[in-house]
Amino acid sequence: MRNPAFRFELIHVCAQTGARRGRLHTPHGIIETPCYMPVGTQATVKAVLPRDLKEIGTMILLANTYHLFERPGHELVKEAGGLHSFMRWDGPILTDSGGFQVFSLAASNKIREDGVEFRSLLDGRLHFFTPESVMEIEEALGADIAMAFDECAPYPSTHDYARAAMERTHRWVKRCIAAHTRQDQALFGIVQGGTYKDLRIESAKFLADLDMTGYGIGGLSVGEPKPLMYEMLEALMPFMPKDRPRYLMGVGSPDCLVEGVMHGIDMFDCVLQTRIARNGLALTSTGKKMLRNSAFAHDFQPIEPGCDCYACKNSFTRAYIRHLVKCKEILASQLITLHNLRFSLRLMEQIRQAIEEDRLLDLRNELAEKGALD
Amino acid sequence: MRNPAFRFELIHVCAQTGARRGRLHTPHGIIETPCYMPVGTQATVKAVLPRDLKEIGTMILLANTYHLFERPGHELVKEAGGLHSFMRWDGPILTDSGGFQVFSLAASNKIREDGVEFRSLLDGRLHFFTPESVMEIEEALGADIAMAFDECAPYPSTHDYARAAMERTHRWVKRCIAAHTRQDQALFGIVQGGTYKDLRIESAKFLADLDMTGYGIGGLSVGEPKPLMYEMLEALMPFMPKDRPRYLMGVGSPDCLVEGVMHGIDMFDCVLQTRIARNGLALTSTGKKMLRNSAFAHDFQPIEPGCDCYACKNSFTRAYIRHLVKCKEILASQLITLHNLRFSLRLMEQIRQAIEEDRLLDLRNELAEKGALD
Repeated sequence: MRNPAFRFELIHVCAQTGARRGRLHTPHGIIETPCYMPVGTQATVKAVLPRDLKEIGTMILLANTYHLFERPGHELVKEAGGLHSFMRWDGPILTDSGGFQVFSLAASNKIREDGVEFRSLLDGRLHFFTPESVMEIEEALGADIAMAFDECAPYPSTHDYARAAMERTHRWVKRCIAAHTRQDQALFGIVQGGTYKDLRIESAKFLADLDMTGYGIGGLSVGEPKPLMYEMLEALMPFMPKDRPRYLMGVGSPDCLVEGVMHGIDMFDCVLQTRIARNGLALTSTGKKMLRNSAFAHDFQPIEPGCDCYACKNSFTRAYIRHLVKCKEILASQLITLHNLRFSLRLMEQIRQAIEEDRLLDLRNELAEKGALD
Repeated sequence: MRNPAFRFELIHVCAQTGARRGRLHTPHGIIETPCYMPVGTQATVKAVLPRDLKEIGTMILLANTYHLFERPGHELVKEAGGLHSFMRWDGPILTDSGGFQVFSLAASNKIREDGVEFRSLLDGRLHFFTPESVMEIEEALGADIAMAFDECAPYPSTHDYARAAMERTHRWVKRCIAAHTRQDQALFGIVQGGTYKDLRIESAKFLADLDMTGYGIGGLSVGEPKPLMYEMLEALMPFMPKDRPRYLMGVGSPDCLVEGVMHGIDMFDCVLQTRIARNGLALTSTGKKMLRNSAFAHDFQPIEPGCDCYACKNSFTRAYIRHLVKCKEILASQLITLHNLRFSLRLMEQIRQAIEEDRLLDLRNELAEKGALD
């Protein structure tokens, strides 16, 4: 059932590609789509102050339910007034359901019909997630958008396994809908089905019938080749409701952002931007640059000339940042993270404009030619 | 010989304590004294963007010659246009001489009359620092204030040892003066003499006769009890020129800032503020708070209510910061470092105002009563 507190406007469809330009209204603000969501796993986007996130144009953050359940615990976040108040971010937030994490991170998980038993990686304690308990946790966290609890089949999975996981995901989403109570929080269902077109289509149809506020597409970018991911998107997209936002979960490298948008995706999240930054790797419009490399020792250009991030605008040079990386200085992570996030948010700005101007294919080709999508 | 590009105004002397309120003019700006200098050892104040350093009222930074000589090398910094340009800090900078570090950090150092041989801690290579080579390095770094190369006697040292180190420091400072050429850089001499009053007085007199632009007091806070440090300051201060800035090197805990000022000191530097921040320890006006402690798990106050730092002003709570500390999130270091630095810079603002109002003793007593100096 669609939550009336959330409104999705479909503003324009690119004549060249079919990509969608939209606008999602939430209790904490408006999200222009397609959008990229920086990831704040533990209620912080690593190495960035909230005011700097605002400055670079962040419209919505993602936080991870599994991590926050483990530490500091959803009850504490609730006591703090919810995630917005706890982490001092007054813009929109989305929480995932922990489904992906209990399968991929937690130790010795056991999937049962009622839920998933798993051992904490922190202290070895036994926990049990059910659709109902996850709804309780996500409501306590209080993000604007909560994802339904799903079972994410690994890659590769047999058709039988992928079908079973998908069907369980469908039974669970109904239980999530029944358990979810917060009127100021949207609940998104998640399309599963592994790398099987027939299952993906079946899942998309099933969820469309539930008339939810928005939809995630899960279980992709879990090890399969990218062309296979795009194939799945192409197959399932005709069965997704046009008037609801579509969120491709855990995907967001520059090439995937562009390709995803061209396949009709509205929302993305990815840890790549922040994770590679802490290793000294910067995104630029001519490809990734490993700033630790000695090639940059005497390079007194900014990370990317012309970039409007704090680091580039203020002429912090590649030589200086290389020095910081080699010294393991925190400032290296701060500067490169700001740059990589701003790079990706600006890429989405370019994409949104290109959609409005019916020239996304041209933009994709321009970007690819320069190497921005490498 | 005093550098005419630097002017020190003695604005007021506190009638209650004899503490000095001054103003040091440098090529990169004015420093109101007494001042605390945040430490940017490797050309970055750990975990703080330069713009945030400005925002919290930083007037001058310290950078470490020894570390920058090792990495990235003074030649590279020179090629980058000097330290200001390299680290994107357009305010005043002071570099120490590396003397303290080659004795305390470097491996297997050998002190000879011409200089000090030491092995790099990074790569084991053999280096040789002389007064002349250190002047060359500091001129390449291009800070506003360069410290002369000195021999810092450890604590405890015999009178003979401390005298020998002091006398060598005196011979070396003359060589530094002879070797120093930059007109836009002030050269400060360093008073040594261990924990012996007679030597400290002799050193102060010797350096005063050299008519230098400013003076450091070195070799204190190296393990001796604080009362012994204050005794030394009391003994030597009458022999320091009144019209030159006096810099107590490596000292800057809240109690030492207040006591140092009361003993006539104008400048301080200390890594405590930034180092303890990275361990989760915050300075407050009621004493230090270990934010990692479970006592703060449900404490939804800012680090220090009423503090005007970014973290406190924006209501980042102790509970949230404790969560970040426990998760080893970089944001914990960022927020607590900003707070600790702002706390110390504000303390200096209070001290400067109290001197102007002839009530520094009252301020000291008020601060001590609340626990701010614990």
